[in-house]
Amino acid sequence: MSDRRLKFWGWGHEDQTLSEAEARAIATRVGGLTGLAPEGYIAPPELGEISLAAPRLKAPETLSSICSTSDYDRAAHTYGKSYPDYIRAYARDFSAAPDMVTFPESEQDVTALLDWADGADAAVIPFGCGSTVVGGIEPVVGDGFKAVLTIDMRRMAKVLEIDPVARAARIQAGVLGPNLEAQLKPSGLTLRHFPQSFEFSTLGGWIATRSGGHFATLYTHIDELVESMRSVTPSGVMESRRLPGSGAGPSPDRLMIGSEGSLGIITEAWMRLQQKPTFRASAAVKFDSFESAAEGIRAVAQAGLWPSNCRLVDAEETKLAGAGDGSFHMVVLGFESGDHPIDAWMARALECVRDQGGRIDAAGERDSVADAWREAFISAPFKREGLISCGLMHDTFETSITWDRLADFHANVKAATHEIIKRATGAPGHVSCRFTHAYTDGCAPYFTLHAKPTPGREMEQWKEIKTAASDALIREGGTITHHHAVGRDHMPWYGAQRPELMGEALQAVKARLDPKGLLNPGVIVPVQR
Amino acid sequence: MSDRRLKFWGWGHEDQTLSEAEARAIATRVGGLTGLAPEGYIAPPELGEISLAAPRLKAPETLSSICSTSDYDRAAHTYGKSYPDYIRAYARDFSAAPDMVTFPESEQDVTALLDWADGADAAVIPFGCGSTVVGGIEPVVGDGFKAVLTIDMRRMAKVLEIDPVARAARIQAGVLGPNLEAQLKPSGLTLRHFPQSFEFSTLGGWIATRSGGHFATLYTHIDELVESMRSVTPSGVMESRRLPGSGAGPSPDRLMIGSEGSLGIITEAWMRLQQKPTFRASAAVKFDSFESAAEGIRAVAQAGLWPSNCRLVDAEETKLAGAGDGSFHMVVLGFESGDHPIDAWMARALECVRDQGGRIDAAGERDSVADAWREAFISAPFKREGLISCGLMHDTFETSITWDRLADFHANVKAATHEIIKRATGAPGHVSCRFTHAYTDGCAPYFTLHAKPTPGREMEQWKEIKTAASDALIREGGTITHHHAVGRDHMPWYGAQRPELMGEALQAVKARLDPKGLLNPGVIVPVQR
Repeated sequence: MSDRRLKFWGWGHEDQTLSEAEARAIATRVGGLTGLAPEGYIAPPELGEISLAAPRLKAPETLSSICSTSDYDRAAHTYGKSYPDYIRAYARDFSAAPDMVTFPESEQDVTALLDWADGADAAVIPFGCGSTVVGGIEPVVGDGFKAVLTIDMRRMAKVLEIDPVARAARIQAGVLGPNLEAQLKPSGLTLRHFPQSFEFSTLGGWIATRSGGHFATLYTHIDELVESMRSVTPSGVMESRRLPGSGAGPSPDRLMIGSEGSLGIITEAWMRLQQKPTFRASAAVKFDSFESAAEGIRAVAQAGLWPSNCRLVDAEETKLAGAGDGSFHMVVLGFESGDHPIDAWMARALECVRDQGGRIDAAGERDSVADAWREAFISAPFKREGLISCGLMHDTFETSITWDRLADFHANVKAATHEIIKRATGAPGHVSCRFTHAYTDGCAPYFTLHAKPTPGREMEQWKEIKTAASDALIREGGTITHHHAVGRDHMPWYGAQRPELMGEALQAVKARLDPKGLLNPGVIVPVQR
Repeated sequence: MSDRRLKFWGWGHEDQTLSEAEARAIATRVGGLTGLAPEGYIAPPELGEISLAAPRLKAPETLSSICSTSDYDRAAHTYGKSYPDYIRAYARDFSAAPDMVTFPESEQDVTALLDWADGADAAVIPFGCGSTVVGGIEPVVGDGFKAVLTIDMRRMAKVLEIDPVARAARIQAGVLGPNLEAQLKPSGLTLRHFPQSFEFSTLGGWIATRSGGHFATLYTHIDELVESMRSVTPSGVMESRRLPGSGAGPSPDRLMIGSEGSLGIITEAWMRLQQKPTFRASAAVKFDSFESAAEGIRAVAQAGLWPSNCRLVDAEETKLAGAGDGSFHMVVLGFESGDHPIDAWMARALECVRDQGGRIDAAGERDSVADAWREAFISAPFKREGLISCGLMHDTFETSITWDRLADFHANVKAATHEIIKRATGAPGHVSCRFTHAYTDGCAPYFTLHAKPTPGREMEQWKEIKTAASDALIREGGTITHHHAVGRDHMPWYGAQRPELMGEALQAVKARLDPKGLLNPGVIVPVQR
């Protein structure tokens, strides 16, 4: 673990905090691009400015070395990284902090913590690194528990075994992305799962939330990279057999993948790896119309070429990212292989996008437009903090939709979002869109919104906007989340989207695996007490 | 539906029954190749030779048009197509016949049948076309039910909608493979899921059993082709949303896929389609050693080329199939695309197999060795009937294993099977192996065994062999099934293989969706009454 301390209130390390001048500069720039005027400045909170209620738990002697009730630990485990998380953190409101944060170093520790929580009637929040933007780890569990305990998995961070023949590794769930790849590096193998939160999220978190990663096609979700996995539940350990494929009953892994800590705590997994890529090709393609760009993506996705990158960024978002002047929509294509040159692949993909009116802007092993976009992608969460400090609302929501419904879906969701921003805040906002992943049968649109909320009414105005946008996603046939997960924030729409009997099935499973309902109450399965 | 009647006791149509001379010729040929002497001849049963107990159910007037208690229908829904199924059918033993067979024409019919079964306390066996080789539809449900009702889904056989943009179709579950493809054909799209049972199995059966199909890599199981699905359970209808991808909680589809009729009856599904291939390349590659051939498959599977065909057939099986003289192991490679030439793909795959010592025997758009193999593959179930008539045992079992364990696994499973055949029957048998599917992290070995059982003791000797071979699969780290499913025959090993808590989770789900345990009792979830 690094000596640098993570911000208890935001993205990344404390030394990555923007100065007031930096925040203002970012807000002024984005304000100019979005037509929104920054207002005021709220400095990020200092630990001394917040006060926490006395913890309602005391660690037993046997577990004391892995338990903390320090203000820093409790504050740092209160929120994820969503807009409403920032608003409350900036308001110095950490009233929902967990009573205690624990750092198991082994599976035995996890079991002991669950046993203790059971005896103490404490809710348990499994925690990776807190990058959730959907309230996935927020210790808001209703009144039915005597306390809340967060289990932070980051001390279980080892790559335990590497199998170079089958190309897989057994990896502890608490490892952060960079450390995972560093441990794999000597083997020449790589997981290549790079969600935007890569630096600040864990393998277990990725699996628990069905994280979306590097690959824009084919292996889009972490689901596909899980060979087998192991979880601790209040009823015991559940471990699947390591197999390349199986037809023996419903997949046990697929029941746990996406359970978001509500059924068990993932402790380790065998993950499928691949050779580090040695052949790469990348291209940026400009389109005059969004529709043609989408058709270009569809053509590539349906061609069976499986590019690692196949993303559409609309004109507004290209401009916001500093990768364009707003006059064109951009498609970024990339192929990579650790095995063979990919010229034939890229050549055909370029034909597909040209057929839809795309103009090849840059192509090569690496290209500057794609690089600019990647840079903007990684720095976005940092920059967002400056916007929020300066009174601008920045939020994102994402979904997926089949190609046949895309045009209406995109238009209607965008219009609904524009409309609610205006209604909620009294002024027009800014809505842009990109596609993060592409499938043969559809794509994953990702919307970014900017608005100017009324100071002091940010939470309520955000809630209005979030509600209307989410309603639109569900009404228009999409999913409430393609890879951000359900958490607490998406539960109403998740409830509307998933088959009712699936809800009952999951409730029945939870009653068996977690009979007292201790695990992440209110996520995936509604609180039962 | 065709006017030709299906055999009530075996594979295919009545007019596809082998004559005694044909059966003897096949048995003599295979006997010669395997060192086993055919003995005697048992003719397939005639309907007049079997007697069935009086049915314990009488259809209500409202359902009478879709209900049958005819001897033919009841006999034709008694067995699947496994070796022990044939032995009992050849013994004219149809004592396990269901009391009634029903043929719903709509989802309302399915619901009405479930309601009626509930009132009558009858077990319900969902039935596609009965190609199971694992006892999946056998009406053996314990003593806790007053009767057994089979629901044959084949009258629900329409392609209801085709979406040419997202390339998907909404298809009723009871459609047989050829009819499905015929209905899709005018659109230029195809499902391209070709299990060996393609002609005699249904979409719903494929989904319920996690069928393995055409694609040797990438989209190996039907699971990947399901966009959304709809099932009727005793607690109501469960339908998932049509989406290209989602991260909203554990996948509802993945809970039903592989549930083998134990949780609900699949009535329809949106299936992902693709363009009919216009570019094809195929190659047969010979290897001197099985190990090198396996390494060749591994190299291709790990190269990220995703061939549609990538199969290893060992020397014994190549010989049995009439595609070789037993001096070489064969790897069949195939690429196909509806979008682009696949020369670069095939060129690299051939390099991979050459690097492992493979000799390119034939390559082209189609090739004769691959064709001979395909022909043998499709006709195998017909020919098997001749072997069994002439006193030879023929059975297959299949599994999957990661590459790192393949060599020991293959050697030990093969040795265990040889040993038990000798012990059970008193004489050596014949065991061959092919790989049906290949993954980056492993492959799916498929074993075929021939033996000479003692007349009159076939069932007991088969059971001994099946038990020892299955024990070996589980002991050596494989799965009890890669795509044949669990059924009744594999339940002990499925129980040993799946996580115990997954078993409890499925029991809990069944208790919620099928509270009286009517659906396919004893499959996936043990009988509870």
